[in-house]
Amino acid sequence: MSAEQPEGWVRIVGLGPGSESLITPEASRVLEQATDVVGYVPYVERVAPRLGLTRHGSDNREEIRRAEQALEMAAAGRRVAVVSSGDPGVFAMGAALFEALEAGMPAWRALDIQVLPGVSAMLAASARLGAPLGHDFCCINLSDNLKPWALIEKRLRLAAEADFAMAFYNPRSRARPAGFARALAVLREACGEARPIMFARAVSTPEERLSVTTLGEATPEMADMRTLVMVGSSLTRRMPGARSEGEWVYTPRSTPSWGAVS
Amino acid sequence: MSAEQPEGWVRIVGLGPGSESLITPEASRVLEQATDVVGYVPYVERVAPRLGLTRHGSDNREEIRRAEQALEMAAAGRRVAVVSSGDPGVFAMGAALFEALEAGMPAWRALDIQVLPGVSAMLAASARLGAPLGHDFCCINLSDNLKPWALIEKRLRLAAEADFAMAFYNPRSRARPAGFARALAVLREACGEARPIMFARAVSTPEERLSVTTLGEATPEMADMRTLVMVGSSLTRRMPGARSEGEWVYTPRSTPSWGAVS
Repeated sequence: MSAEQPEGWVRIVGLGPGSESLITPEASRVLEQATDVVGYVPYVERVAPRLGLTRHGSDNREEIRRAEQALEMAAAGRRVAVVSSGDPGVFAMGAALFEALEAGMPAWRALDIQVLPGVSAMLAASARLGAPLGHDFCCINLSDNLKPWALIEKRLRLAAEADFAMAFYNPRSRARPAGFARALAVLREACGEARPIMFARAVSTPEERLSVTTLGEATPEMADMRTLVMVGSSLTRRMPGARSEGEWVYTPRSTPSWGAVS
Repeated sequence: MSAEQPEGWVRIVGLGPGSESLITPEASRVLEQATDVVGYVPYVERVAPRLGLTRHGSDNREEIRRAEQALEMAAAGRRVAVVSSGDPGVFAMGAALFEALEAGMPAWRALDIQVLPGVSAMLAASARLGAPLGHDFCCINLSDNLKPWALIEKRLRLAAEADFAMAFYNPRSRARPAGFARALAVLREACGEARPIMFARAVSTPEERLSVTTLGEATPEMADMRTLVMVGSSLTRRMPGARSEGEWVYTPRSTPSWGAVS
């Protein structure tokens, strides 16, 4: 790579759920090589400043503009890391980057682009609590910013009918205070009051907070924007354990062949 | 920790999809501290031999016996790493360990146990191909070793109705040659012939092989035991790109609010 013919690239990087010890060596290496880091402000701040690195923090909901900025800079020869928390392919910058790529300048399609996976919030939360996603599961973004609420509700009902364990991203925000209460009501009706529900906030950071309860006992206030919520399948079990919170939650690998299946 | 009062532990460790550069620093540290590693032979072989470390490889389908062995050794003061490929919570040793814990000696419940998450095969495969799981998705184990085939088929149909992107583990093995053909037939009927399907074999290893086609063109032989299969949602897009395979696949973040939702 010479100064006359700079070869720009874009790396869409997963920073993992929060702890340094969960960032892959591959991601760390790319962050060392980048000339620019772009992303949502709190994620960009997770990359230490250094000489030769420009950090471009932007606001939430500016994903497409941020992706265009990354592609523009790479086309100009910069080495750009687009950072997401967790894994970039799960409700993060991966899809936004490809949306911008498809809608944007044709020349961008020749750019050197790679996606570097990370430990998602869902997998980190599941690990802390045991193995609640140890059998077939689904993963749903509860924000209705980009899809109609009716579709979320339809997916919740079908997921319950399929008896999936479930992981939910973005359960609640100031702009959408009512949605999570509605989701809980749908789940209670579809899965029953006794079904385990788990709240995992800011996993692997100093602010980590975990709790396990039932759909009957759950209240909307138990989640905020930094909380990953999981609901068990009909087979998910709670058992006493030496964890600080006193119990493990796991979904066994086997489904009995009698009953259940219609 | 003194020699007279050894404090054993169990760490259920995700080794990531194959490459060293995708093993978390947290996992590497635990592997350095362990006295024993247990797991399926090819995964145990990914941990380099060293003085003071005993490697216990066991066969596939021996998950419960392996988990009991780990718990027994920890109770005797050993520091035991139970290794899985990818993430231990996704169709791996996490659930098996807790099954053995719940069914086993009451004293085991006081053991120091932790689950260390990893980059799952699903997230690594998705990253290689773009962002096919960039919107709501589900993850299904296609093996009918531990659940009736009727339940798999029911879940495939409901997942299609929910318009999830889908990731499939264990699509095919010598013992179950017919199952994946049946799954493809169900998906073709439920999602149509044009829907994108992706095959990602041994991602991040020298044997990596990726391909993208449609349900109409897909054949059962495109998958083997080491292949992660993904099927797009109705919104998943294929676009030309500078990847070696010549295209990207991604699922946009937005769902139009017109049509589709019944």
